[in-house]
Amino acid sequence: MSHTAEIIAVGTELLLGNIANTNARDLSQSLSTLGVNVFWHTVVGDNPERLREALQIARGRADIILTTGGLGPTYDDLTKQTICQTFGKRLVLHPDILENIRLFYESALHVPMPENNTQQAELPEDCVIFDNPVGTAPGCAFESGGVHVLMLPGPPHEMSTMLRRHVEPYLRKLSHDAIISHDIMTFGMGESSIDQLLHEKMSHMTNPTLATYAKPAEVRLRATAKAPTAEEAEAMLVPVLADVRRLLGDVVYGVDVANLAECCIKELLKAGLTLATAESCTGGMAAEKITAIPGASKVYRGGVVSYWTSVKANALHVPQEILDAYGPVSEECARAMAAGARKATGAEIGVSVTGAAGPDPDERGVPVGIVFVGLSTPNGQFCRKLDFGRRRRDRIQGLAANHVFDVVRRWLTGLPVESF
Amino acid sequence: MSHTAEIIAVGTELLLGNIANTNARDLSQSLSTLGVNVFWHTVVGDNPERLREALQIARGRADIILTTGGLGPTYDDLTKQTICQTFGKRLVLHPDILENIRLFYESALHVPMPENNTQQAELPEDCVIFDNPVGTAPGCAFESGGVHVLMLPGPPHEMSTMLRRHVEPYLRKLSHDAIISHDIMTFGMGESSIDQLLHEKMSHMTNPTLATYAKPAEVRLRATAKAPTAEEAEAMLVPVLADVRRLLGDVVYGVDVANLAECCIKELLKAGLTLATAESCTGGMAAEKITAIPGASKVYRGGVVSYWTSVKANALHVPQEILDAYGPVSEECARAMAAGARKATGAEIGVSVTGAAGPDPDERGVPVGIVFVGLSTPNGQFCRKLDFGRRRRDRIQGLAANHVFDVVRRWLTGLPVESF
Repeated sequence: MSHTAEIIAVGTELLLGNIANTNARDLSQSLSTLGVNVFWHTVVGDNPERLREALQIARGRADIILTTGGLGPTYDDLTKQTICQTFGKRLVLHPDILENIRLFYESALHVPMPENNTQQAELPEDCVIFDNPVGTAPGCAFESGGVHVLMLPGPPHEMSTMLRRHVEPYLRKLSHDAIISHDIMTFGMGESSIDQLLHEKMSHMTNPTLATYAKPAEVRLRATAKAPTAEEAEAMLVPVLADVRRLLGDVVYGVDVANLAECCIKELLKAGLTLATAESCTGGMAAEKITAIPGASKVYRGGVVSYWTSVKANALHVPQEILDAYGPVSEECARAMAAGARKATGAEIGVSVTGAAGPDPDERGVPVGIVFVGLSTPNGQFCRKLDFGRRRRDRIQGLAANHVFDVVRRWLTGLPVESF
Repeated sequence: MSHTAEIIAVGTELLLGNIANTNARDLSQSLSTLGVNVFWHTVVGDNPERLREALQIARGRADIILTTGGLGPTYDDLTKQTICQTFGKRLVLHPDILENIRLFYESALHVPMPENNTQQAELPEDCVIFDNPVGTAPGCAFESGGVHVLMLPGPPHEMSTMLRRHVEPYLRKLSHDAIISHDIMTFGMGESSIDQLLHEKMSHMTNPTLATYAKPAEVRLRATAKAPTAEEAEAMLVPVLADVRRLLGDVVYGVDVANLAECCIKELLKAGLTLATAESCTGGMAAEKITAIPGASKVYRGGVVSYWTSVKANALHVPQEILDAYGPVSEECARAMAAGARKATGAEIGVSVTGAAGPDPDERGVPVGIVFVGLSTPNGQFCRKLDFGRRRRDRIQGLAANHVFDVVRRWLTGLPVESF
């Protein structure tokens, strides 16, 4: 049986444009993986009349309603009260939940619990309680006349913790099937090319399914299978993963890995090697991406952001003759920067990036979009030349930073480095 | 007269959770500044029945309807057709628009226009046309029975370009008043403290208004005034800006400036000085933030990401005695790193950051959340010690990177550096 869902976000801050509705995005992604059709998102402010109207409309067109927000302790947090009125439920005080909230205040926040938090311990009669390990407002779910209503807190990290911990298991039970997903991560091919290559496969598939999610410069493919048991679902995904790998080749850099930087960390750990960066046009973005991952310090020694040409000479030891003869945006300079990153840090592998990110061409007239990625290893030097055209500065920087990691992961896994 | 708006986003990719609805956020922010009340956001897929239902509901509760998405050339782009059916309008082909689309393909994309793009040149009869300088689909607006319907393209950079160029002027005309806003940027005080300080002022204000928008580690205050002329609106804002500056003091770092990094670039240009960075726990984030701003190369020379302690010694010349005696997360090391950044790059000002971002304490047992920001200038050295507590790694990194720029802007503007 296929379910239809509506997500109702409650919060005036969304209608003022203070924040984007990322909760609806995260819930939708998870629900589509679970085989639930999300047909509507609605946002209303902290206003009980309009929330009641939204709930009345939603119960007429969906059999799963998920709300986010409005579970806080202040007078304008009215989601629970309004939902109970709409669905004819009483609110019941749970003394054990109240005690937990009191403890959270005292032990984590070191202040006594304000008395208005008491209402957070009130929940609709006959509901399933979703505890909230990272905040004070618990969530809950109940069923009424064939409609499942799930209430979740608004702060995104509380919502996403509750999503994994409670909402996904709750919804999985509604379908009686095991649903398993794997993320196939690719770099180096656009979404439309991937769609074209996989079109024949994807257009006929209903179970397992294969969906593409494009991020800047990367495409994630999510393969999902539904079966009576998890083992059967896993088995159904084996040929899908094999097919995708066969059709896309080495643009696939991993399965269930967060991004290219994490992939590099894993391969560096495996190889027992360390990395250093030398960045010009990306201005530290590659360093920032790798150090965003906990544990990066095991394999990443550091780097130099050589924004001025003189810093390339002084901190990275790029020979002045190279800078004079070829300029800072050149294959020769990229190779020397990569070697200089090793010298400055002692790392076994140095990777560099220099280019014209715009908006203006570089001082020697190299056009916007030209980027060189250099690699220096114990077994030789490499350079990849890229032309991103007249894209926006932040796009060029983001693409270039990803190529830095792609060059490293290709070398570490024995693939050709300069082409891709 | 006060208007009520609903934003309807059309696109299955939103319901699959592929992307967040940032268009609704950006439109809402702009509409609230223009004095239009946004009471609803709705998202529907590329499905004409559900879009028709959403339009029927919206025309019953709003007098301005803005749609985003579904203006593309493919068979599932049905927003215009569905809106015309719902509001009883004919679609009319505009040969001049068709010619522009053809030219865009040939001159910018270097390919002939696919024939299905013809439908992008069809617009509702009697509409105001919004040209699209960064894409092919024009937007438009019409009025029907007291309801204004505005159709905008889905790609966010096309939408936001059209918002500034056409939507804001269109909506301004509906109110007959001039509306002027200024953004007052602050750093170093939480949103709730600012709310408390300004509460008495803000709660009584209806025109001008003052709203707070919290970003990680920063609070933006938007002051907005409405008056018959722009000059009168500007004059109304003068005392508001003065009051805010008086109440908040030097946590205000600028008006109508994008962020702390841009503020530093402006002050460095004014002072004729250049900057270099030395980063440990922020891993290149400060470098990345400043180089994200076009023109940063005039004042930012570069930096070192000294993730390993040995890199602090080799690339930043931190004396081994300091590293041995005090460890890499210490005031002494932060000061030496800042001086080392100047040495490595030749910049007049060096700023450094070293700390324990977590998830684990540093190797010497410095607890998570302890961060030192060092500053080396021709007139002396400074160090700010921070304790962010057990926050998440990315939060600590983001806060620390902002303190790097706060230290620099305070020194450049003659304010105390070590406290804030």
